[in-house]
Amino acid sequence: MTDRPKTPDSVPQTANAMWGGRFAAGPDAIMTAINASIGFDRRLYAQDIRGSRAHAAMLAAQGIISTNDAEAIREGLLTVLSEIEAGNFPFSEALEDIHMNVESRLKDLIGAPAGRLHTARSRNDQVATDFRLWVRDQCDAAITGLQALITAALAQGERGADWVMPGFTHLQTAQPVTWGHHMMAYVEMFGRDLSRFQDARARMNESPLGAAALAGTGFAIDRHATAQALGFDRPMANSLDAVSDRDFALEFLSASAICAMHLSRLAEELVIWSSAQFRFVTMSDKWSTGSSIMPQKRNPDAAELLRAKIGRILGATVALFTVMKGLPLAYSKDMQEDKEQVFDAADTLMLALAAMTGMLSDLTANREKLEAAAGAGFSTATDLADWLVREAGLPFREAHHVTGALVALAEKKGCDLPDLTLTEMQTGHPAIDQSVYSVLGVHNSVASRQSYGGTAPDQVRAQIAGWRERTAKWHEKG
Amino acid sequence: MTDRPKTPDSVPQTANAMWGGRFAAGPDAIMTAINASIGFDRRLYAQDIRGSRAHAAMLAAQGIISTNDAEAIREGLLTVLSEIEAGNFPFSEALEDIHMNVESRLKDLIGAPAGRLHTARSRNDQVATDFRLWVRDQCDAAITGLQALITAALAQGERGADWVMPGFTHLQTAQPVTWGHHMMAYVEMFGRDLSRFQDARARMNESPLGAAALAGTGFAIDRHATAQALGFDRPMANSLDAVSDRDFALEFLSASAICAMHLSRLAEELVIWSSAQFRFVTMSDKWSTGSSIMPQKRNPDAAELLRAKIGRILGATVALFTVMKGLPLAYSKDMQEDKEQVFDAADTLMLALAAMTGMLSDLTANREKLEAAAGAGFSTATDLADWLVREAGLPFREAHHVTGALVALAEKKGCDLPDLTLTEMQTGHPAIDQSVYSVLGVHNSVASRQSYGGTAPDQVRAQIAGWRERTAKWHEKG
Amino acid sequence: MTDRPKTPDSVPQTANAMWGGRFAAGPDAIMTAINASIGFDRRLYAQDIRGSRAHAAMLAAQGIISTNDAEAIREGLLTVLSEIEAGNFPFSEALEDIHMNVESRLKDLIGAPAGRLHTARSRNDQVATDFRLWVRDQCDAAITGLQALITAALAQGERGADWVMPGFTHLQTAQPVTWGHHMMAYVEMFGRDLSRFQDARARMNESPLGAAALAGTGFAIDRHATAQALGFDRPMANSLDAVSDRDFALEFLSASAICAMHLSRLAEELVIWSSAQFRFVTMSDKWSTGSSIMPQKRNPDAAELLRAKIGRILGATVALFTVMKGLPLAYSKDMQEDKEQVFDAADTLMLALAAMTGMLSDLTANREKLEAAAGAGFSTATDLADWLVREAGLPFREAHHVTGALVALAEKKGCDLPDLTLTEMQTGHPAIDQSVYSVLGVHNSVASRQSYGGTAPDQVRAQIAGWRERTAKWHEKG
Amino acid sequence: MTDRPKTPDSVPQTANAMWGGRFAAGPDAIMTAINASIGFDRRLYAQDIRGSRAHAAMLAAQGIISTNDAEAIREGLLTVLSEIEAGNFPFSEALEDIHMNVESRLKDLIGAPAGRLHTARSRNDQVATDFRLWVRDQCDAAITGLQALITAALAQGERGADWVMPGFTHLQTAQPVTWGHHMMAYVEMFGRDLSRFQDARARMNESPLGAAALAGTGFAIDRHATAQALGFDRPMANSLDAVSDRDFALEFLSASAICAMHLSRLAEELVIWSSAQFRFVTMSDKWSTGSSIMPQKRNPDAAELLRAKIGRILGATVALFTVMKGLPLAYSKDMQEDKEQVFDAADTLMLALAAMTGMLSDLTANREKLEAAAGAGFSTATDLADWLVREAGLPFREAHHVTGALVALAEKKGCDLPDLTLTEMQTGHPAIDQSVYSVLGVHNSVASRQSYGGTAPDQVRAQIAGWRERTAKWHEKG
Repeated sequence: MTDRPKTPDSVPQTANAMWGGRFAAGPDAIMTAINASIGFDRRLYAQDIRGSRAHAAMLAAQGIISTNDAEAIREGLLTVLSEIEAGNFPFSEALEDIHMNVESRLKDLIGAPAGRLHTARSRNDQVATDFRLWVRDQCDAAITGLQALITAALAQGERGADWVMPGFTHLQTAQPVTWGHHMMAYVEMFGRDLSRFQDARARMNESPLGAAALAGTGFAIDRHATAQALGFDRPMANSLDAVSDRDFALEFLSASAICAMHLSRLAEELVIWSSAQFRFVTMSDKWSTGSSIMPQKRNPDAAELLRAKIGRILGATVALFTVMKGLPLAYSKDMQEDKEQVFDAADTLMLALAAMTGMLSDLTANREKLEAAAGAGFSTATDLADWLVREAGLPFREAHHVTGALVALAEKKGCDLPDLTLTEMQTGHPAIDQSVYSVLGVHNSVASRQSYGGTAPDQVRAQIAGWRERTAKWHEKG
Repeated sequence: MTDRPKTPDSVPQTANAMWGGRFAAGPDAIMTAINASIGFDRRLYAQDIRGSRAHAAMLAAQGIISTNDAEAIREGLLTVLSEIEAGNFPFSEALEDIHMNVESRLKDLIGAPAGRLHTARSRNDQVATDFRLWVRDQCDAAITGLQALITAALAQGERGADWVMPGFTHLQTAQPVTWGHHMMAYVEMFGRDLSRFQDARARMNESPLGAAALAGTGFAIDRHATAQALGFDRPMANSLDAVSDRDFALEFLSASAICAMHLSRLAEELVIWSSAQFRFVTMSDKWSTGSSIMPQKRNPDAAELLRAKIGRILGATVALFTVMKGLPLAYSKDMQEDKEQVFDAADTLMLALAAMTGMLSDLTANREKLEAAAGAGFSTATDLADWLVREAGLPFREAHHVTGALVALAEKKGCDLPDLTLTEMQTGHPAIDQSVYSVLGVHNSVASRQSYGGTAPDQVRAQIAGWRERTAKWHEKG
Repeated sequence: MTDRPKTPDSVPQTANAMWGGRFAAGPDAIMTAINASIGFDRRLYAQDIRGSRAHAAMLAAQGIISTNDAEAIREGLLTVLSEIEAGNFPFSEALEDIHMNVESRLKDLIGAPAGRLHTARSRNDQVATDFRLWVRDQCDAAITGLQALITAALAQGERGADWVMPGFTHLQTAQPVTWGHHMMAYVEMFGRDLSRFQDARARMNESPLGAAALAGTGFAIDRHATAQALGFDRPMANSLDAVSDRDFALEFLSASAICAMHLSRLAEELVIWSSAQFRFVTMSDKWSTGSSIMPQKRNPDAAELLRAKIGRILGATVALFTVMKGLPLAYSKDMQEDKEQVFDAADTLMLALAAMTGMLSDLTANREKLEAAAGAGFSTATDLADWLVREAGLPFREAHHVTGALVALAEKKGCDLPDLTLTEMQTGHPAIDQSVYSVLGVHNSVASRQSYGGTAPDQVRAQIAGWRERTAKWHEKG
Repeated sequence: MTDRPKTPDSVPQTANAMWGGRFAAGPDAIMTAINASIGFDRRLYAQDIRGSRAHAAMLAAQGIISTNDAEAIREGLLTVLSEIEAGNFPFSEALEDIHMNVESRLKDLIGAPAGRLHTARSRNDQVATDFRLWVRDQCDAAITGLQALITAALAQGERGADWVMPGFTHLQTAQPVTWGHHMMAYVEMFGRDLSRFQDARARMNESPLGAAALAGTGFAIDRHATAQALGFDRPMANSLDAVSDRDFALEFLSASAICAMHLSRLAEELVIWSSAQFRFVTMSDKWSTGSSIMPQKRNPDAAELLRAKIGRILGATVALFTVMKGLPLAYSKDMQEDKEQVFDAADTLMLALAAMTGMLSDLTANREKLEAAAGAGFSTATDLADWLVREAGLPFREAHHVTGALVALAEKKGCDLPDLTLTEMQTGHPAIDQSVYSVLGVHNSVASRQSYGGTAPDQVRAQIAGWRERTAKWHEKG
């Protein structure tokens, strides 16, 4: 599923015995190795053929080539497409790139008309169009992947909308929150990711086709027609920019890196929560590996790998920024370095989204463990202090002082705050009455946090409901 | 204008004599040095005070604090604001950060009511609000800066809408283009940058205020009211997310890095174009440095510095991604590392935009040099080939063959293509007639590239006109 | 202690009210802001003066300037030095950089001879020399800082050389190890860091001085003499390289980034180990912050900040690589971007090393907690399997099968492996005899791992002893 | 030659038709895709088999396994090796990684003894050993590649040791230098690269083998023996560190990035020098691509690609740093992300070194063009000023003033400085005599720069001679 070889079917390439061979290779072999792109840009075949079909149809509509030629080209391209998809296409490294491979095969198939396809077009606008279409497809794939992940997180959140757990700051228990609330925090993150890919898609959805080498063309082409045929909103407005722009790739990478950062945070939590010391969650066997002799050991391999993927995507982002730095207009060969980075980052992201969706769907939260941990460490002390301010009218500082004293008392007694008697409570401050117990204890604590976006189960359920409406619309459309 | 000290007024810090001192510092001094943020987060003072004013007004409106207290807080905060802006504010490192510094001074000024300001609020949502407001301001500043830069580039483009120059690929002359067309390519880039900052601004424009420490609060606050008072579109929907999200900073950095990449490309062109070998442009004295004894030497210092700024901004981007990688929810102290990176990147970007705007406004393009270079190397050979295809109906390959032969003939004669006689032309192909001359020569070549977005002066002027409409709207609004 | 302003004494710079001001600034102000380096390169004053003194002395020794002039220069430079160190030096932004500031003041002080100091020298080789001296000092500081940190880690390791704790893989208990062994793993990492800074220092220890602008000079200078005076091993062998090389800065940054990565790993462990769920360690109050009302809450702020510092240093590394990418020889102004990145990274590293040294020294490992955790999860099951292979001659696979059965039995009985009776043991395999108990239990387990570098306390103590010998030598030298 | 697929023989992977398939894949398929490493780590087969042979021989020598078993293992491993090298090995993704693939095949071939190979070893120390051996090989390959490149640069430098060319600062002519001097600047850079790889190799040359899972082992293994058998200097001293260290990979990447930065600078110069405006060099057809109809167009494709490679290698470096950030000890699955980054970076570096060696060997410097450009812009004005200081005893400032006046005179006359008559010269200053002409003109200028490392041809030749001695030693060894 990634660009780098996962299928172990080719001859290994770097045995020690081959070192000599590396350097013995003559200039021709070295130049081919550094220059040819067919090894990776063949992934653009569908986009390349789609672009060529649109271009040919437009040329015919404009009277630049004959209808017969256009028809021959169309049929020839469909044949090439089916050959590639059937795995029968004879890719050639000597033909350097996907464009030349397709064009050369087209010529074999249909002869002279193949040569007319390149009228009013150049490899520069062709590759820009192909790659942009490919990245646009990836935006769609990311959006679909994020929708699935959001749906999985919503299901987790719904299940445990009122399960209490420790809310951490500095990995220290701060206040109780709910499992649903925690899950919904990630839903918000993934929702922003989704909108980022939508914005990127909208911005990149302009057609470079017809920019030709860099200056436009004297042929009476109709760029609006090809733009429309390829699903673009409009043609790009400047031909120099059209062939030298790679913003769309950088924006896709940046959005992917932010998304991968979110995944790394959730993955880190899953790793920590799976430890023997936490046991907040149990990972499914599908997403972890065990030990034949240590039955409780379940290594969260998938979560660890997801935690790491930000590295790969950030690396790709840095790579392309570095490549583009300081390049004069219009096209420079440096830009050929764009594809492998984006291919790998996109593959990584889609796989990571699918894996996280699966992991989250199969995850079991250990409700009892979560609840037990939630109450430790006098985690509702701030609730008591807030009550003193709110209900007894104490200034903040005094409320804190009183609370500190009562916590110390509870600690001395070896009990939790709600276990103190009212009399004991009143040693802290005489204004304390029975109603104080309504905010103590982790369930009371979370139930009280009714501010908009707060952790109260009602609030959490309201947020889930809002997201359910949105997801329903996705499914309608789909 | 930047966060790092530009004003040489403080005592130098790393004399050799001080090495010993570094390590002799006890734990307290080291902890203060690593922990305190007031050295940089004091830049958030205006946002901090604005947020506190909104919070206090809401607390009073909700009956959580008294109107009198709210009024005292409001006046106290205004005093603090004026003290800071007058440079009279006694910042204290012992008070760690801007929030504590302001709060402590407020207490000095108004006494007890100051303590009530912190009701239903935490430093976690406070800093998230302050920083988000600050970054939102930077989006606005970037948008303003880009508008000025686009305006400057449009003026350059308009001046030379029909000046011919070489269109380069691989830094080799490919086809003639116009100076206006080249400038407009950058206008397109900066236009995308502008829309990227607009999208980022819209996405970040949600209020974290009221998320409290991480769980929301039991006080009956009105988060929609504070959101509105601070110009946010709505409150953030999840309190855990509100205090642990730094997407807005990462998205600002990513958009800044893409923009800085564009600046690096233009800067590289200016450096190359300023060389003795090119002399395409003359940089103004304001943006370059000279030599007292080499009168023609004019070092493009400012352009070189702008070329480099992508490094700084990309570095900041990598830094924050790395910091955020794998952080568990909700707030961790690691996140304190966010500000200096964004401060420096924002300062760098705004300065770079202003400098590029100035440089471009003061730049003289050497029209004669550009035109002379445009015609070298038979740069209109593709025009001849296209004519043969278009007008004489030759297949592409034959058209290329004929063109190659005529170029060889011209080279042998030491002349350019338009200098060949019709008879000579017809040795290439008998179908060539007088009308061929209408596409030869650099002016004919560019004039013929009438495809949408092409380099023909008419096309360029149409694009300029479209942009002029947009810029007019900016100025109306402003 | 860092280059970015920590001392809150200057007027805040980005109030909203100032936005207009930013863009209203004329070209002169913008050019000064982007061009002047005195705001940061004043940190090179000691190196600059040292370099000038060496240069002047050499010029006199070679008869290029008079002894009187040299003496006047020497005394003048010492005055400048004392003025700067006393905080009385009138730095001027108009004089752009530290070199011009010093030279201008020297002229005020001694008149005409000041002008002769610049004979056979240029700002290009001067800044290269200053900055190299500064970075060399930082290598020394890093080495000193690492020595202190290693000493602190050794002390921790020695204290708990035989304290058992869980050895983790995937944050899951894998096998028992000792606290000392774990600490010594970091000693090894810091030891490699130290040798990396030593190598970098040795490689950078060549003098650029005398390369002049880029081509060398026609004056009869003695570059070997100035190299020696400045503690360099030799002059650099190519003057173009001397002024355009920044490898030394990149190598320093790369070594710093690896070191910061190590710190981030230890910091992450400290954060996790400090959680309520682990409680493996107790951080000193000096390095953590508490809560006034939650007595057990102790936020590991310093550890979190150290975990984050890799971001800052990696960002600086990426920044300088990006700046240097594709720069033609010899000097380009882009290179002025080198200093702030290295200053900030060096300050960050030195502070981080000092903080980690302090934190580790003040850290309390909770021996009982560690030991209790070490035995959980049948962590010595592999010891049993190994015993079956080693002592009973079972094939690996069978040994694993037998072990699995006995673990299941213990789990069923709710006991640990050493709690099984010999009879129960023999239900797994009849060859098991009494001696099996000598490898079960966490103490037996760790004691048995006697392979070189293994976790057996004897091995750990041997490694500590070896490191003690090395550290003793450091102190002798110091 | 690279890890990413260059050979277009496998089925294309991302046709639009496949999107559905991506997400339809069940958990098993997704987990396999994210978890299995055999797709890339099969490149370690030779190292894996070498390590296993050393381990088996040691086990037998220590009496842990029988000599017969050891012999069976040895022969089986040799069979596996030959199967892989012949391309007949049935790699299986279900067996996850190279270690399991080899072990499983060994079991097929020799049965039970195969199971004993894993005694006292774990996949953790095994992969650490394999990967370290691989990276060590890459250091050797980089050293060899750099030696070839240095040799090519020396040949270029020798050929043009006294050819004058412009010495640039800010891409503006500053002073004349020689072609040989410029080439030797790169020799210095590549020489530092070489020493950096040597240092990295020495530091990484310690054996992790025998660290077992993380704690060492209770078997009486001899780690010094396996270390020696594998060419390591010694075993690593801490088993936790041995399995969790990836410094060697990061140091290799950092050194590679610095080297790639040097290549990007030379590549940028080649691109600029190849432009029609410069024409300083002519690239060989082998390393550039042409145009069928524009005979003078020669696109420096290879140089552009080399300029870009820094992006790829820096990206890989950032990726691995990000992965390693904050990983607790000892082994975490995140670390599986190390290999693809290093494989790709190493392949890229070796290819880039070979390509630059070829390009430089085949490069023609245009001596006349270089010389003509060297003298433009009064590039020897500083020589005149220096002469006035040195020979006429003028203070620096006055010398500059006089020079400026004479340059102005020459400019007015439309001639160069050496073309002024002595009488004209003396209008500048009466002390000027005939001997001034000995420093004017580009040849005199470079000849005069006799300072150590300066551009004088004698100096350049001395540096070349020194390097020739060093390269001679390489060839002796080789």
